[in-house]
Amino acid sequence: MRVLNMNVAILNVTGYAGVELARLLLRHPGVQVTEVTGRSAVGLRLSEVLPHLGTSDLVIQTEIEGPVDLAFSALPHKAAAESVAELVNAEVKVIDLSADFRLKDVVVYEQWYEVAHPAPHLLAGSVYGLPELYKEEIKKAHLVASPGCYPTSVILALAPVINLITPDIIADAKSGLSGAGRSLSLTTHYSEANENCQAYALKGHRHLPEMIQELTKLRQQKMGPSSPALALTFIPHLVPMTRGILSTCYAHLEKDCSPAEIRRLYQDFYAEAPFVMITDEPPQTKHTWGSNRCLIYPTVDERTGRLIVISCLDNLVKGAAGQAIQSMNLMLGLAEQTGLDSLPIYP
Amino acid sequence: MRVLNMNVAILNVTGYAGVELARLLLRHPGVQVTEVTGRSAVGLRLSEVLPHLGTSDLVIQTEIEGPVDLAFSALPHKAAAESVAELVNAEVKVIDLSADFRLKDVVVYEQWYEVAHPAPHLLAGSVYGLPELYKEEIKKAHLVASPGCYPTSVILALAPVINLITPDIIADAKSGLSGAGRSLSLTTHYSEANENCQAYALKGHRHLPEMIQELTKLRQQKMGPSSPALALTFIPHLVPMTRGILSTCYAHLEKDCSPAEIRRLYQDFYAEAPFVMITDEPPQTKHTWGSNRCLIYPTVDERTGRLIVISCLDNLVKGAAGQAIQSMNLMLGLAEQTGLDSLPIYP
Amino acid sequence: MRVLNMNVAILNVTGYAGVELARLLLRHPGVQVTEVTGRSAVGLRLSEVLPHLGTSDLVIQTEIEGPVDLAFSALPHKAAAESVAELVNAEVKVIDLSADFRLKDVVVYEQWYEVAHPAPHLLAGSVYGLPELYKEEIKKAHLVASPGCYPTSVILALAPVINLITPDIIADAKSGLSGAGRSLSLTTHYSEANENCQAYALKGHRHLPEMIQELTKLRQQKMGPSSPALALTFIPHLVPMTRGILSTCYAHLEKDCSPAEIRRLYQDFYAEAPFVMITDEPPQTKHTWGSNRCLIYPTVDERTGRLIVISCLDNLVKGAAGQAIQSMNLMLGLAEQTGLDSLPIYP
Amino acid sequence: MRVLNMNVAILNVTGYAGVELARLLLRHPGVQVTEVTGRSAVGLRLSEVLPHLGTSDLVIQTEIEGPVDLAFSALPHKAAAESVAELVNAEVKVIDLSADFRLKDVVVYEQWYEVAHPAPHLLAGSVYGLPELYKEEIKKAHLVASPGCYPTSVILALAPVINLITPDIIADAKSGLSGAGRSLSLTTHYSEANENCQAYALKGHRHLPEMIQELTKLRQQKMGPSSPALALTFIPHLVPMTRGILSTCYAHLEKDCSPAEIRRLYQDFYAEAPFVMITDEPPQTKHTWGSNRCLIYPTVDERTGRLIVISCLDNLVKGAAGQAIQSMNLMLGLAEQTGLDSLPIYP
Repeated sequence: MRVLNMNVAILNVTGYAGVELARLLLRHPGVQVTEVTGRSAVGLRLSEVLPHLGTSDLVIQTEIEGPVDLAFSALPHKAAAESVAELVNAEVKVIDLSADFRLKDVVVYEQWYEVAHPAPHLLAGSVYGLPELYKEEIKKAHLVASPGCYPTSVILALAPVINLITPDIIADAKSGLSGAGRSLSLTTHYSEANENCQAYALKGHRHLPEMIQELTKLRQQKMGPSSPALALTFIPHLVPMTRGILSTCYAHLEKDCSPAEIRRLYQDFYAEAPFVMITDEPPQTKHTWGSNRCLIYPTVDERTGRLIVISCLDNLVKGAAGQAIQSMNLMLGLAEQTGLDSLPIYP
Repeated sequence: MRVLNMNVAILNVTGYAGVELARLLLRHPGVQVTEVTGRSAVGLRLSEVLPHLGTSDLVIQTEIEGPVDLAFSALPHKAAAESVAELVNAEVKVIDLSADFRLKDVVVYEQWYEVAHPAPHLLAGSVYGLPELYKEEIKKAHLVASPGCYPTSVILALAPVINLITPDIIADAKSGLSGAGRSLSLTTHYSEANENCQAYALKGHRHLPEMIQELTKLRQQKMGPSSPALALTFIPHLVPMTRGILSTCYAHLEKDCSPAEIRRLYQDFYAEAPFVMITDEPPQTKHTWGSNRCLIYPTVDERTGRLIVISCLDNLVKGAAGQAIQSMNLMLGLAEQTGLDSLPIYP
Repeated sequence: MRVLNMNVAILNVTGYAGVELARLLLRHPGVQVTEVTGRSAVGLRLSEVLPHLGTSDLVIQTEIEGPVDLAFSALPHKAAAESVAELVNAEVKVIDLSADFRLKDVVVYEQWYEVAHPAPHLLAGSVYGLPELYKEEIKKAHLVASPGCYPTSVILALAPVINLITPDIIADAKSGLSGAGRSLSLTTHYSEANENCQAYALKGHRHLPEMIQELTKLRQQKMGPSSPALALTFIPHLVPMTRGILSTCYAHLEKDCSPAEIRRLYQDFYAEAPFVMITDEPPQTKHTWGSNRCLIYPTVDERTGRLIVISCLDNLVKGAAGQAIQSMNLMLGLAEQTGLDSLPIYP
Repeated sequence: MRVLNMNVAILNVTGYAGVELARLLLRHPGVQVTEVTGRSAVGLRLSEVLPHLGTSDLVIQTEIEGPVDLAFSALPHKAAAESVAELVNAEVKVIDLSADFRLKDVVVYEQWYEVAHPAPHLLAGSVYGLPELYKEEIKKAHLVASPGCYPTSVILALAPVINLITPDIIADAKSGLSGAGRSLSLTTHYSEANENCQAYALKGHRHLPEMIQELTKLRQQKMGPSSPALALTFIPHLVPMTRGILSTCYAHLEKDCSPAEIRRLYQDFYAEAPFVMITDEPPQTKHTWGSNRCLIYPTVDERTGRLIVISCLDNLVKGAAGQAIQSMNLMLGLAEQTGLDSLPIYP
């Protein structure tokens, strides 16, 4: 039953994040998609370009035309900020899935993305769209910078213990190929990616500064501003699957803690988070497939006393479109789970 | 909004068809699952055995205990008929996903399945659960024999033209591995099945007599009882994917027909079938993933005049659990698409 | 022990056929690779571009410079014929892996490939490089047109019975993605191809006229020039694996034949073919992985009397590079299996 | 050219390590396989059970009968030690691929494997079969305990720097499914393993004590017996591919070191190791497929000063059968690369 009829738009519906937004929003009971834009396929019907979306009448446009209540931008960085700035000007609520409004420090942004930021004046007012940490802020936000798959998996894995560990952290992530998007490259060519596993971005992945920003902020909230800086090493790997991210995080606890104590701490921390589940066994990406869940398994290596936290999620749902819709629900006053309650598809 | 609260049960919830029934029924707005049985894991909570199903409180039982309005049996053949007979006796509506009530001729059943049929008296009253062909019968049925993935894909591909072709038909099917179920075998061992393609059942697959029964019945309805017997060769193949069946069917048209005429004929035939889509391009199994759709592409090889019809579907949804729920909706007076309208997940 | 030291060159070593030629030739005991060319990566060492090839000192050139005894062209069609014509002029023996010299009728070539043939004068003298059919001709050839994966699998499957069947033939082929080459496309993008199966080229695949040419020639040799024209429908499918082709061929026998008789006929036909094996069970592509084998399983569907022949091979070895080297061995007077005797890699 | 004709036997040829030994030894120019045993399929010809091995006449036996010069045992632990003890008694040279003779301390063995060691008297005389560390010992050995895939990848990754790092080490490994063997389990069932990634053995993997034994030994050789004990956390993960292991190792350097210095150190350490290659880019498992190579990429995370070493190999070749044959070559006085020089198969 559709109780609300808010109009929403999707910018750049033809990339994988946009496609997934369309899949979920076309069945969302509280909003209707009234406009979609694309950087290709303009003028074609959505159902011609993406036949799995069925019989939608939407036509791919160059720009948003009519009035909408909220827009999702799935544009790449820089292009995103340019479009978002216009929408914000027009008083449209925006959820941006690019990196453009995630980093609060424009200098850090420009270092990592090697472009001038098109709208630095919007940085201060944007909210980092991780509902498990910023639910109240998101409810009131006009611009949400929705985080991607790697930061979501690593930040959710470490947030509960960030003040209980030494600053030395390793996050070793394994990602399916859809995280690399729909653009063609030799790395994502089937015959190259199948039966293959490799690490990449050893000189620093662009999602690293976000993780440091958010984890440092949490740490300072709990330990004070003089807590030592984090030394986080983040190494992403490609594994031959379409969807799914699994992050294995390693750190040292400041004080001894049993696995059971750690587990309880995580359960308490996420007691109000409907999409985070603390699992009894090491989690499998397959148990999140197509859903907005993030599964987390914290434990302690009893031989070395080292904390190990494994988290996993579907990179296109909780790591992209689903998370953005979770923020939308909060911004529009809907229940957080609206339109996101379908179960993972297994096997 | 739950408008009805019919109670339903799932027999043998731990196989892949049962698992998929649970996934879909736990989110179905018109029914609630009140009991589940298993041949293993009895006494455990559903969520322990199948963590992706989340926090369901259902416990796996040996037998159905309380009163239910309708039961799904996902038991293997023979065991199915035994349990179904008891339920029918107790006046429970039943949808059986096994082969036990699909073949009308008990002799044919016993030849192919090499067991004595445990309840031959129920054969006459059972309805073949293909809603695209038997919608009215299913609405009134007490026992529905829901067809599996191969017959669904082949029968739906050929039904519209069954009286327009010569009796000589080939159906070459390509199936993902989940069609072989959750039981372990060397054939479905990852390292054997990955990077592999093979044909099997060259001496005759158990789903062949069903296809012949249903296609012959359709043919005789249109052409009279003396129409020549069908000579159908059905060769299934395993391809390295989890879900999806694609059937490529070949036949000769009795009279010349253009691809456009054939296409129109299919569109008309399935005008009232909400889950069948006649596609503009050869369909991809990925465009059905996780959904109840069957995509069909009929064409004519202009060099040889041969009719080619390609159909595809998700073997666990339209080829198993989704189709059974589609029948349930009809039996319970719900809209045919209730609980089955989520879009395919791509990529 | 290297008994011969013939110098060979590879044109366009950077595509998948070229890469596979390099892998096999760098370990071939009878020849040495002295030059390689590329359409990209010119000036780089082979080992930089293709690290799996190890420490080879070869540098990728634009053109062949020095004298070589034999050259392999892995260039695409048209570009191939241009380069091949020069080499033939220079009296270099050539094995061309493109389609340019396979079709004897230049009109047919130009229809299907939609370009003017750059060197039609060479067509008459070229030999179709299928050693199982043309061993003696290949031994004496100066220009061999080495067939690709689809024609090899279909022609070898049907050659032994081509005069025993009615002209109506279906070949339903399932191919891994490397058959589509190393060039990028959405179809071969990992996230699109994984967990997907689809048919393509329903309006006619470019390899079809080759199959018709060769099968017709065989048929006419045995049945006389007035035998009715073949009506061959060939439908290729993509299945999610890197290597492997499996072709399932269907035809009607002119006279009844038992599976055992058919099997004996195939064994006799290929008695002298070291790479063709008639299998006891339906073959698996995995049993050919990385090897030059073609496995063939002929049988008869006893219900319909229809002949079914399944063949499979590794599309980059017997379907490309290995087959070309098999021809080279014959052309250079080496044993047919030289450098090609490694066993398939399983699992 | 076969210059030597040593007779070798394979115990338990039907598991994946045995299968791979057969593939490589049947084409090895210096030995001939004269006997094979199996725990299943006894009495069948090898070519019936493993058709990819072609036309070998070997019949699977229960026990080794005739005299052989050297035997490979691919039996599981405990069964291995029982058979090996008999062979050693009979003065047959043995290469054991199980864990039975790898751990020098029988107490540690019995703790981890939870069985009484059947032949503890042989532990002192056995040699750990990692030719990169123990070449001279292997040449003289009568019993070699050939290490498996995880220890090989982790020990080779860390050996060159084991005296330059603090004792705190993390090894995060990603393995294909064939590492789990040919025995059936739900974890290795195709539909469960495909599109899935998970960690396992978080309470301690049986290969951990081997890694600690060997790395500690190396460390004490260089730093003296009082060097602090290693605190090694090893977390293995399953990724959906058949072959390949990639280990990402993390440690802190005692002293600052540039990436270039570290790299040179590795090149020097492995200067005489024909199968170890120090790569210019993070390595890919696909670049080792089917070959005996181990690729290693050492670098330094310049933000944190942390050492990162990535190694990869084909778990059935350098991680099992190939490594054992490398030892055999040394034991029989053959060149180390004999029969192992084929290039990786890409793509």
